[in-house]
Amino acid sequence: MFDNISIIGCGLIGSSILRAIKSKNLAKEIKIYDHSKEVTAYLKKENMSINIFSDIRQCVINSDLVIIATPLSSYKEIILSIKSSLKKNAILTDTGSVKIEVMKMIHNINLKDVHWIPSHPIAGTEESGPEAGQAEMFKNRWCIISPPKNSEEQPIKILKSLWEKIGSKVKIMTPEEHDKILSLTSHLPHAIAYNIVRTVMNVEDKLKQEVIQYSAGGLRDFTRIAASNPLMWRDIFLDNSENVSKGIDSFIEKLNELKKAVNDKNGDKLYQIFNSTKEVRKEIIKAGQETSKPDFGRKKD
Amino acid sequence: MFDNISIIGCGLIGSSILRAIKSKNLAKEIKIYDHSKEVTAYLKKENMSINIFSDIRQCVINSDLVIIATPLSSYKEIILSIKSSLKKNAILTDTGSVKIEVMKMIHNINLKDVHWIPSHPIAGTEESGPEAGQAEMFKNRWCIISPPKNSEEQPIKILKSLWEKIGSKVKIMTPEEHDKILSLTSHLPHAIAYNIVRTVMNVEDKLKQEVIQYSAGGLRDFTRIAASNPLMWRDIFLDNSENVSKGIDSFIEKLNELKKAVNDKNGDKLYQIFNSTKEVRKEIIKAGQETSKPDFGRKKD
Repeated sequence: MFDNISIIGCGLIGSSILRAIKSKNLAKEIKIYDHSKEVTAYLKKENMSINIFSDIRQCVINSDLVIIATPLSSYKEIILSIKSSLKKNAILTDTGSVKIEVMKMIHNINLKDVHWIPSHPIAGTEESGPEAGQAEMFKNRWCIISPPKNSEEQPIKILKSLWEKIGSKVKIMTPEEHDKILSLTSHLPHAIAYNIVRTVMNVEDKLKQEVIQYSAGGLRDFTRIAASNPLMWRDIFLDNSENVSKGIDSFIEKLNELKKAVNDKNGDKLYQIFNSTKEVRKEIIKAGQETSKPDFGRKKD
Repeated sequence: MFDNISIIGCGLIGSSILRAIKSKNLAKEIKIYDHSKEVTAYLKKENMSINIFSDIRQCVINSDLVIIATPLSSYKEIILSIKSSLKKNAILTDTGSVKIEVMKMIHNINLKDVHWIPSHPIAGTEESGPEAGQAEMFKNRWCIISPPKNSEEQPIKILKSLWEKIGSKVKIMTPEEHDKILSLTSHLPHAIAYNIVRTVMNVEDKLKQEVIQYSAGGLRDFTRIAASNPLMWRDIFLDNSENVSKGIDSFIEKLNELKKAVNDKNGDKLYQIFNSTKEVRKEIIKAGQETSKPDFGRKKD
């Protein structure tokens, strides 16, 4: 499908793209750059018949498709470094979780003769690093493409087809729509998961051990998300700060309503609140976005 | 182990106890009462060689052990109904998630010649009803026993042994300790899960569908807990209102700290917050309370 694909950043997502492209045989040559010596050492050891570059510019020369899979805060430096080495009409994409701020940054850099088409695969686990990558990571997961206004049709089609070939369902939306929806479905939930784990662990040391021991009553579920890559999430919150901040305000408003019902011992109101969320999971399962098995199909180790 | 065990309430937890006791062959006779015709019809259909009673008093006569596995708000009526039918020196226990309020209520009822020893198996799924019960539900899960002061040793030992035989690890703690710890590990996380799902779903109808579609970014995890039995959770919040209300206050305090860091675009603070929760999951896994598999070992359906 491609002669050359370059992947910049080969952590959880980058290495999953690498594995998926290789397993579907979608490129004649795959070129990798990662600034971490540990990551490149791991990839060399795995012997994946890819080319690993220590110079980011060399890595992108002649590539038809360049995929940036690094934290958002590194984009600017990366794009400034590779800008003059990109092949004419190459497609440049990313995997980042926020779109508007990046769009503004790219606009200021004024890329020429390159098709900048941002992607966001809604996939991943709480793990980090190339060891955690999986070829099946994108299977049946949505990937959102948010092309800038006036983008050409053809490169969007090509990029869409790549994501589809590695298992994704693709949706095109504007950066504004993307950042709003993802603030609700992903960024706010992460803020809340980090916050509940931080609140509950903020107890004296003696109690901490007990909290861990009896965490199966609910807390343990939240610790999964709260174990995600802190650097990646710092960048997401910085880039989507306005939507996240608004989301936190709505959340606190609703939580104060719940607290009032608790303090007033208002059983009817509590029942109404708890009953109102019961069907959401069924709809998510129906939409093919969640396992239908109870308890996530989680097995006792 | 027992001649007669009565189980009052045969939903998710009661039916799991029933299945576990049967599979380990721990009673000569198992007697069941449930006020729901659907539940008793299901149990009859399953043909489990148990005795199903339509009179709650008849159900407990002669039983050595009576287990109440119904919502907290039904305890008082149940105990008043069976009080004078209980066998002398019978053990009476429950499976409820709050202890202090029940202790007060039992104290006022003034049970005589019966060993009241509350239990709380920290187990369950987001499902409800006897169809969802499993004999393995308590395997490797904690069960907390909170005996009143001056309880006799022997009946505590017997009850502890029953929970252990069906797979639980047992911890004895006071009702005060129980309600404090469970408010942190279970009740507050449930409040937060219900609240995030409710906040995020509080959008215009058009957006609702998109929120469901892209929920794999984090939200879907919370919908599991937010699908739990609303009646049961209403009762828990009513009975443990003081601890839960305090927990909500701490949570909001921390969330405002996070919001300030978002608004100030304070990357260092955000990193510090997100990094502080990273290790908790590992400790929970080490404590044998969570699967070590990424993403809960969740499989795409």
